[in-house]
Amino acid sequence: MENHQTEQQSVDTESRPGLYERLSEYAETDYYPFHMPGHKRADLDFPNPYKMDVTEIEGFDNLHHAEGILLEAQERLKKLYQSKKSYYLINGSTCGLLSAIGAVVKPKDRILIARNCHKAVYHAAKIFQLEMNYVYPEWMEYGIQGQIQPHAVQEALQKYERTKAVVITSPTYEGLVSDISAIAEIVHKYHAYLIIDEAHGAHFSLSSYFPESSVNQGADLVIQSLHKTLPSFTQTAALHLAGGKAVYEKVEEMLGIFQSSSPSYLLMAGIDRCVRIIERSGKQLFEQFHQNLMDFYKGCLQLKCLRVLTEKDYEAYDVPACDPSKIVIHTGNAGINGTQLYFRLLEQFHLQMELYSAQYVLAMTSVMDTKEGLDRLLHALLVIDGELQKAQKQGEGMSAAAAQIGPESLLKEIVQSVKKVMEISEIADYNIEDTACEACAGKICAEFIYLYPPGIPMIVPGEVLSEELIRFLGLCRKNGLNVQGTKDRQYRNIRTVATA
Amino acid sequence: MENHQTEQQSVDTESRPGLYERLSEYAETDYYPFHMPGHKRADLDFPNPYKMDVTEIEGFDNLHHAEGILLEAQERLKKLYQSKKSYYLINGSTCGLLSAIGAVVKPKDRILIARNCHKAVYHAAKIFQLEMNYVYPEWMEYGIQGQIQPHAVQEALQKYERTKAVVITSPTYEGLVSDISAIAEIVHKYHAYLIIDEAHGAHFSLSSYFPESSVNQGADLVIQSLHKTLPSFTQTAALHLAGGKAVYEKVEEMLGIFQSSSPSYLLMAGIDRCVRIIERSGKQLFEQFHQNLMDFYKGCLQLKCLRVLTEKDYEAYDVPACDPSKIVIHTGNAGINGTQLYFRLLEQFHLQMELYSAQYVLAMTSVMDTKEGLDRLLHALLVIDGELQKAQKQGEGMSAAAAQIGPESLLKEIVQSVKKVMEISEIADYNIEDTACEACAGKICAEFIYLYPPGIPMIVPGEVLSEELIRFLGLCRKNGLNVQGTKDRQYRNIRTVATA
Repeated sequence: MENHQTEQQSVDTESRPGLYERLSEYAETDYYPFHMPGHKRADLDFPNPYKMDVTEIEGFDNLHHAEGILLEAQERLKKLYQSKKSYYLINGSTCGLLSAIGAVVKPKDRILIARNCHKAVYHAAKIFQLEMNYVYPEWMEYGIQGQIQPHAVQEALQKYERTKAVVITSPTYEGLVSDISAIAEIVHKYHAYLIIDEAHGAHFSLSSYFPESSVNQGADLVIQSLHKTLPSFTQTAALHLAGGKAVYEKVEEMLGIFQSSSPSYLLMAGIDRCVRIIERSGKQLFEQFHQNLMDFYKGCLQLKCLRVLTEKDYEAYDVPACDPSKIVIHTGNAGINGTQLYFRLLEQFHLQMELYSAQYVLAMTSVMDTKEGLDRLLHALLVIDGELQKAQKQGEGMSAAAAQIGPESLLKEIVQSVKKVMEISEIADYNIEDTACEACAGKICAEFIYLYPPGIPMIVPGEVLSEELIRFLGLCRKNGLNVQGTKDRQYRNIRTVATA
Repeated sequence: MENHQTEQQSVDTESRPGLYERLSEYAETDYYPFHMPGHKRADLDFPNPYKMDVTEIEGFDNLHHAEGILLEAQERLKKLYQSKKSYYLINGSTCGLLSAIGAVVKPKDRILIARNCHKAVYHAAKIFQLEMNYVYPEWMEYGIQGQIQPHAVQEALQKYERTKAVVITSPTYEGLVSDISAIAEIVHKYHAYLIIDEAHGAHFSLSSYFPESSVNQGADLVIQSLHKTLPSFTQTAALHLAGGKAVYEKVEEMLGIFQSSSPSYLLMAGIDRCVRIIERSGKQLFEQFHQNLMDFYKGCLQLKCLRVLTEKDYEAYDVPACDPSKIVIHTGNAGINGTQLYFRLLEQFHLQMELYSAQYVLAMTSVMDTKEGLDRLLHALLVIDGELQKAQKQGEGMSAAAAQIGPESLLKEIVQSVKKVMEISEIADYNIEDTACEACAGKICAEFIYLYPPGIPMIVPGEVLSEELIRFLGLCRKNGLNVQGTKDRQYRNIRTVATA
């Protein structure tokens, strides 16, 4: 039974630098991080981590039964966000989503989720055997998903009676915010819980320069990735509650299940450090950060081919707010595509972006970004933009590759037209088989297939593989788009529910 | 609905030192760690962790789809333990247990577990809606749980047909090992999977001075906490497989559910560092460690009142092996109890032990312990022992408190006599109520109640609260034993299944 997977791994690894060595080396390079984590590899004091890493010894409390220093630390987190109760997460927003959903549902309950929710939400549906229904984000010409409209939530709750919980991602990866106050009012009218995946909004409400957090807009449970946009270590997050005692107890039970019983004191010290930095220096840090961002955006007005999106660009879509810390560099008709721009910035300018799609590149920023860093990005964009202008003047226009906007414009229709015939959790009752792509039409899919970005599943286990979807998949592959989720990484086969 | 829990938290926390500050201060003290993590706060090189902490950027792979440096790193882990495939765990053994069990069961399947399994095993039963049956560890006069007997596994599998998986903890916290080869043979005869929680045995098989790992004894899935006994950060662990491709795929699916989608590069770098340290210097380190341990045990022969347990003390129980790195200091009739000894070592000698029970104190050691550390422990024990001898000679004997062996000798009978009437997962279908302890007899318990140590649940949700158990609980409380799990921390009420 030892298969090709193990054989693939039979490389001589002993002589190569390991992860520790590679990270140590990388720390000494001039690569600038326009990506998570939000501490931006800044030179913040921290003693030798081996010296700091303990366990539940005298005086250091127990995260799963916090009564001392960890209770106080979580109390500071709660004060900072003005929640009713806040929890440290040391297994990322992943465990926060599993726990929040697990706390408010019973098996077979019905939940309504935004189709662009994080995969942990789908995992919760599998584990807790939920009936899943969807609302779909708005789609924007830039290849970006926008807000969830309150009326879409209203219509879905009307249609799917006795829905127990609604899960929405706000902001999106690109920083687009939904109208949580309006959604909360609707959700509560239907006696459901509102869970907000605010993974990308841990900096919200900490300064007036950024949108308001859903913690203070009527959401019942809010999950934030502290590491994404604040100076906190990767894998640290927070769960904020606005509900009552019954919810606290269920949440604590779930956190006891999905978080390690040996929580890392390094990660927890990093969270407390982050909270203290914001408490003590947040005002100045956000002031300076905002100023640097404004200077950057102002500089970007010089761009002729590339386009850095701002609030104005989203106006037509009636988005309640957008987060200026997410810098979306749209390639449009610039004569370069997202992939090319990403690697150009990386290789020539040593600027590591967060992600690319066919149409844009995303830079993530935080209070730890420096003016120098943003100046480097502006400079690089101006250099590239100048070359693109010159090429256009010389009539070279776009290269064939760059012109390829790709098939993602079809994604909206594909996603909204798939038909569910069973729930994700029901797949476990069936045998699964590998079916060649060309023979899949009409079969029930047994795996997730994502296009990333935007990271929305085009199909979820239990939904029917249509001719259109299979054609679309072919198109994506042909255009080199990043399709994820299939067990067969060559995409020759798709796992389907066996009909025999 | 804001209840007392939030009010309790309303302390002024802003002026107090936070977790980061307290850990920094603690790092400068002379407290010696006879506890996890196994790096023992040694002065191993590690650059500023903010500099080292990245995310899935170019060149740094993706733990959930490892193809580059993280595949190589896990390949080194596999080579070190000679498994068929090994995975990094960054959410502790907790996620390893959930994933291993989730990989081999379907809802409603039957599993057989050692009653002293980690709570994650019970959580898996809840999540995956399993039917649970138990084998019980041997009980030893020292108040320590011993091995799981192969014949007990055989009898249980005979009785509970179509059991899908068997989960055993070996070694125990105190280092007692079961006969995994014999158990594996039995389990496979019944076509079940054998999952070993080897959380306390990550150093096994790495040197001939310690017992053999179950990885090489026929277990199908083995979970090790690297942080417990090796120089690795808290919350790091490993999952080793010996099964085939179908199991790999299911395990990977489960790890994708229970581990953060933003895994910590600090924790992962710490694992690779640990593996490299063992690869490169393991031989000398284990040699020196063994020598230091032998010197320590030899020195302990001078003790007259206290007793440090060794292989010889377990002989009567036919234990296949025990781990000398676990130093069990038994108080017996020494005139001091475990609690007193623990705090004496802590307060007078600045030696932080791992845990205490009424009858013993446990010191955990690893290759990172120093001769000086072990000498400090030996010296402290000799000083205390001298005083105990003197007191005995003066006819003072034991103080009343010290004489109290406590009611844990009754635990075995209590645990083995509880009756299950529903599965843990079935509790979700019922209303839960708080019932005063004195009115609980005959009711179905809706929570776990543990005695810690040994950390075995006396009762599990779905089992009946007997008169004896309630009396026993009262005795434990009266004797100041550490009872855990009840929502009511005052133990006035127990959560029960509502009968109305």
